[in-house]
Amino acid sequence: MTTPAAPIADRELILTRLIDAPREKLFRAWTTPELLKQWFAPLPWTTPAAELDVRPGGASLIVMRSPDGNDMPLRGVYLDVVPNERLVFTDAYVAAWEPSEKPFMTAIVTFADEAGKTRYTARARHWTVADREAHEKMGFHEGWGICADQLTALVARI
Amino acid sequence: MTTPAAPIADRELILTRLIDAPREKLFRAWTTPELLKQWFAPLPWTTPAAELDVRPGGASLIVMRSPDGNDMPLRGVYLDVVPNERLVFTDAYVAAWEPSEKPFMTAIVTFADEAGKTRYTARARHWTVADREAHEKMGFHEGWGICADQLTALVARI
Repeated sequence: MTTPAAPIADRELILTRLIDAPREKLFRAWTTPELLKQWFAPLPWTTPAAELDVRPGGASLIVMRSPDGNDMPLRGVYLDVVPNERLVFTDAYVAAWEPSEKPFMTAIVTFADEAGKTRYTARARHWTVADREAHEKMGFHEGWGICADQLTALVARI
Repeated sequence: MTTPAAPIADRELILTRLIDAPREKLFRAWTTPELLKQWFAPLPWTTPAAELDVRPGGASLIVMRSPDGNDMPLRGVYLDVVPNERLVFTDAYVAAWEPSEKPFMTAIVTFADEAGKTRYTARARHWTVADREAHEKMGFHEGWGICADQLTALVARI
């Protein structure tokens, strides 16, 4: 448990966008269930349910539904919440503090002012290089990219 | 990442003691480097160094030294801190929020008033049953028991 880990750059996937919306709206879209359900899954996937206890130690349950109707529940816990600035959560816990079956990733989502818009950055950090590679092969860049498009479209109309 | 995990009881190790000292002293012994170094490792192991940033997201580095002089650094991050009541930390991160090489356990240490003394409970929760078993074979009960004795002796004199 004390072996030096691989460099974080080798275990991280990053999506970043400059979005023409205030930080507050992006944060709201991430933390309000009725809004999150409108953009969180890359279409034709959908998000029929979301329970978000947005505070450090609070649990989240987000259900994604595949095009053929299979539900995939995603459970996690928020580690850090700075309103309109930062959200950190992980699937390493299903509740405070009950370890999950398999810690796969920790997500760090940040919102920063930039040129009158918002620099939106979502990082997925993994415990192992193998998990980072698996996540990339599962379509991280395409999937999270579609979601960012959907998020951008949503915040334009809220 | 969404498979139901084994029941928490099968992945947890627990040490509990009724200690004749106020909660405040026990919490202080856990959170003050110069005090922690006096009881944290089961003799003849010692604790030559401790850096404790005691707040949610704060990092800890505790160096344990074996009888033959080998240093074993333990890195972790605090997840929850309620002064004089509860400390939660894990080796799943080496800093906020950098995943470690191997998430092994999450420790939940609680201090509660009971019959004029303090009910001291330390839980080690693991991600897998195999890790719980390995921790037990490494001597969890004997090791943490010796440490609890050393902690009890320390708080009697501070």
